[in-house]
Amino acid sequence: MAFTEYRRLDEDSLIEYIKATPSLSSKIGNKFDDLTIKEVGDGNLNFVYIVIGTSGSFVIKQALPYIRCIGESWPMTKERAYFEAMALKEHGQLCPGHVPEVYHFDHTMALIGMRYLEPPHIILRKGLIAGIEYPLLAEHMSEYMARTLFCTSLLYRTTMEHKRAVADFCGNVELCRLTEQVVFSDPYKVSQYNRCTSPFLDRDAEAVRGDNILKLEVAELKSKFCERAQALIHGDLHTGSVMVTHDSTQIIDPEFAFYGPMGFDIGAFLGNLILAYFAQDGHADQGNDRKTYKKWILKTIEETWTLFHDKFTALWHQHKDGSGEAYLPEIYNNPDLQLLIQEKYMKELFHDTLGFGAAKMIRRIVGVAHVEDFESITDASKRAACERRALELAKTLLKERRKFQTITEVVSAIQLQP
Amino acid sequence: MAFTEYRRLDEDSLIEYIKATPSLSSKIGNKFDDLTIKEVGDGNLNFVYIVIGTSGSFVIKQALPYIRCIGESWPMTKERAYFEAMALKEHGQLCPGHVPEVYHFDHTMALIGMRYLEPPHIILRKGLIAGIEYPLLAEHMSEYMARTLFCTSLLYRTTMEHKRAVADFCGNVELCRLTEQVVFSDPYKVSQYNRCTSPFLDRDAEAVRGDNILKLEVAELKSKFCERAQALIHGDLHTGSVMVTHDSTQIIDPEFAFYGPMGFDIGAFLGNLILAYFAQDGHADQGNDRKTYKKWILKTIEETWTLFHDKFTALWHQHKDGSGEAYLPEIYNNPDLQLLIQEKYMKELFHDTLGFGAAKMIRRIVGVAHVEDFESITDASKRAACERRALELAKTLLKERRKFQTITEVVSAIQLQP
Repeated sequence: MAFTEYRRLDEDSLIEYIKATPSLSSKIGNKFDDLTIKEVGDGNLNFVYIVIGTSGSFVIKQALPYIRCIGESWPMTKERAYFEAMALKEHGQLCPGHVPEVYHFDHTMALIGMRYLEPPHIILRKGLIAGIEYPLLAEHMSEYMARTLFCTSLLYRTTMEHKRAVADFCGNVELCRLTEQVVFSDPYKVSQYNRCTSPFLDRDAEAVRGDNILKLEVAELKSKFCERAQALIHGDLHTGSVMVTHDSTQIIDPEFAFYGPMGFDIGAFLGNLILAYFAQDGHADQGNDRKTYKKWILKTIEETWTLFHDKFTALWHQHKDGSGEAYLPEIYNNPDLQLLIQEKYMKELFHDTLGFGAAKMIRRIVGVAHVEDFESITDASKRAACERRALELAKTLLKERRKFQTITEVVSAIQLQP
Repeated sequence: MAFTEYRRLDEDSLIEYIKATPSLSSKIGNKFDDLTIKEVGDGNLNFVYIVIGTSGSFVIKQALPYIRCIGESWPMTKERAYFEAMALKEHGQLCPGHVPEVYHFDHTMALIGMRYLEPPHIILRKGLIAGIEYPLLAEHMSEYMARTLFCTSLLYRTTMEHKRAVADFCGNVELCRLTEQVVFSDPYKVSQYNRCTSPFLDRDAEAVRGDNILKLEVAELKSKFCERAQALIHGDLHTGSVMVTHDSTQIIDPEFAFYGPMGFDIGAFLGNLILAYFAQDGHADQGNDRKTYKKWILKTIEETWTLFHDKFTALWHQHKDGSGEAYLPEIYNNPDLQLLIQEKYMKELFHDTLGFGAAKMIRRIVGVAHVEDFESITDASKRAACERRALELAKTLLKERRKFQTITEVVSAIQLQP
């Protein structure tokens, strides 16, 4: 069986494919008799197979030419597999401890073979719903974000390298357009795809659509998303794109990767932690009031930004005489000026982070794709109450983000949200 | 003689080339006996030939693989001819009245054949030095800038069209890098290429290199230049890239074109008008004190921005229900919100314009390439006095641009500059 043109693999053809692909078959010691294959794609865009043999394992991810959960009515280029593979490789080189290794990429088949993240790895979002603390999460996420964002920006790269990479990732426009629609547009207009916890949040959703200042601010963020090629961002860095154990943090699914604003990644992660925080009251029961867990989430939010800030500026300091062309050493080599430019840079990045984070929260409450954090709260009125607090905080963050000077102030605002 | 690989044309081989190229030979009625050919490349990067026959004419511009005025020691890709031709065609379609028609483009030869701008067309800069008023200049330039910038931005384009075009023009990175160096870097550090009217301006140049706030602000502008793909800009829109008569205004030489911030174009033009203004005292003599002319320059500065603003927002209004994706009509269709977003957009664009305009002024006084406006003032101390006033104003504009609300305030600051 040849695989010279795209076709969707099933379990049988998958085995044929592996047999024909040395970089995969060698991973399982070329033994095919005892393979177990499990389809686990709970995402919306792909088929994902876990392949386990006696002497090794891997995951096969194949992109479908449409969005799976909606069906073939919403077509979506399978070219995204190419950008996902490129981003996994690039981010993996920069931060190998937190990105699964790519063993194989097949452009024609829109197929990636990569490391299987073995148990007890679970999706972070599920861990957050279950109330599990991950003591290294802030440390690892800040490390991943600092390294991938810094090292793909003009703080580290020449403009020659940057423009070439920007041009490549411009090809991922269809996935960018999906984000433009579901994050920056749909929540602010009547759309057939929007959902909310009805009837409780109907008027809240309507208020979002009628809030001129909110819409003014979200337009500014959309412009940045569409126009500003600041770094190679993951593009979809919510808590469903992170797999964790007590000791390990692995970032997966960068199919939305492109050169965009750094704050979109940091905001996605922090925004989804804030959603997880507001969902906790819906998960509290007689056995666990979740108060301690809520404190841990807040601490993780605070530490993630603080550690990110410190690691990012440390990288900057370390490479200030390197090949990055944003601030040439011959011009910016005095300590006072260094401090000024870093403060300015980090302040803008902080405000971008809050803005994008808020936009990502809003879309998860009144847009098309909701999060399991809230969806798993079965009592609709209780769920709506949790969602409303998250929504109100997000509106404040989006509209007044420039008033926040520190992450501590943000954490206070989260706690004080009525 | 075949032209299957690049070689520099001289007058003889040029005639052979024209004979072999129907789109050119047809322009001169296929008559070659009475051709006059004149080499007029006074730029730094190209050979330019004017070809005139009895029944027609055109210009041939051929890119050299280095910067001509510096010599082969500063190599520069001839690929720029491709981007120049693309920009001429694109801007020409959007604003045919102010962009010379392209008759022919040869990628291999890095050669463009285009309309000859016949006498009395002269380079605007020379007209400004001579003290000639162009009553339609503000009208025409504002028309050109409003149409080309609006129609290549996300106010008019889909993000699909935009990202494709951005990717194409990423290829013009070498020319972008030249701008990064000579506009945003060299003036702020010691560089072998920098010049100033020495010894008069030595300390002024030193003060620029030691001004932390100025360097902080110019870094922000450089980031925008490198990262923000707002529209297809000309990229070098000074008064030497405009040819004029009393009735005609033609924009030439967009070899620096790429997707960048709109304010870079508007600022380049206004900044060079301000340079022309400050040079006038050096051109004044007993016969002409240039006072009336200085008023005309100020009026032109004011009208150019005002007309640009009006035309740009008129285009926006006209196309608000069109395919542009920055502000979807379903979200931004109420008049209050329309006004809010336009005010915000135009305010940022105004401040970008002032910042980039100021940066372009500074580099013409303490950087590598100076302007004839000042260079033609033979008395060095008089020239230095003119340059110093321009430099001081530029520093104010760059550092305090956000304090200016209207172009009238800018014109006042120009007049009040001691």
